Amino acid sequence: MNWLDEIRWDDQGLVPVIAQEVSTGDVLMFAWMNREALQRTAEIGEAVYYSRSRRRLWHKGEESGHTQKVHDIRLDCDNDVVLLKVTQTGHEPGIACHTGRHSCFFQRYEAGQWHSVEPVLKDPGQIYKN
Amino acid sequence: MNWLDEIRWDDQGLVPVIAQEVSTGDVLMFAWMNREALQRTAEIGEAVYYSRSRRRLWHKGEESGHTQKVHDIRLDCDNDVVLLKVTQTGHEPGIACHTGRHSCFFQRYEAGQWHSVEPVLKDPGQIYKN
Repeated sequence: MNWLDEIRWDDQGLVPVIAQEVSTGDVLMFAWMNREALQRTAEIGEAVYYSRSRRRLWHKGEESGHTQKVHDIRLDCDNDVVLLKVTQTGHEPGIACHTGRHSCFFQRYEAGQWHSVEPVLKDPGQIYKN
Repeated sequence: MNWLDEIRWDDQGLVPVIAQEVSTGDVLMFAWMNREALQRTAEIGEAVYYSRSRRRLWHKGEESGHTQKVHDIRLDCDNDVVLLKVTQTGHEPGIACHTGRHSCFFQRYEAGQWHSVEPVLKDPGQIYKN
């Protein structure tokens, strides 16, 4: 059986994907892949997602230069969630979030409110300048 | 604005949730929450998910005793994914997966196939004996 056929794609042909930084263990971002995106990721060793808003493959870093080198591709017990272990390239420390932060998960719940608790490492206007 | 109203619930009123072990950084599992589940999680400091198959709240560990103590609740940049930092209780090392493994992400892609690469720590028949 083809490894891609073992995945339980949802009714839109997608699977949720978690990207985790291999060196720190930080969860960097969450995105989606279709079959082609996952196949391409395995082929080139860099994260290729499916953008639901743009309805096309999205090679992470194609605009920002902040690609993700993929070390490990994991699948969960229900065959319907993928976990990537990655190195976030292009900046030190890595910037995975479009806001210029290290991780997308920078809002922390505290006493009934969300608080931004991680710094912007680079101005998004400088990241996406073209 | 109520913190729960800031979340972009999907068309089924759910949000995807990643549970990460606070001590090791390991990604343990992926599940869903509705508004009530997230509110309850914040209130009691233990992970309460929404089971899509059973269509009801699911207090993680209610059958297995393997509850998740919640240290941190994070929200991503798009306000549509939650990350919990947890201690997986009830066994040492923690068992988050219904297969009796530490993490649900125990299948590793290698050379065109998925391989199980994490041991079963406890027989699921012993975990769910009632």
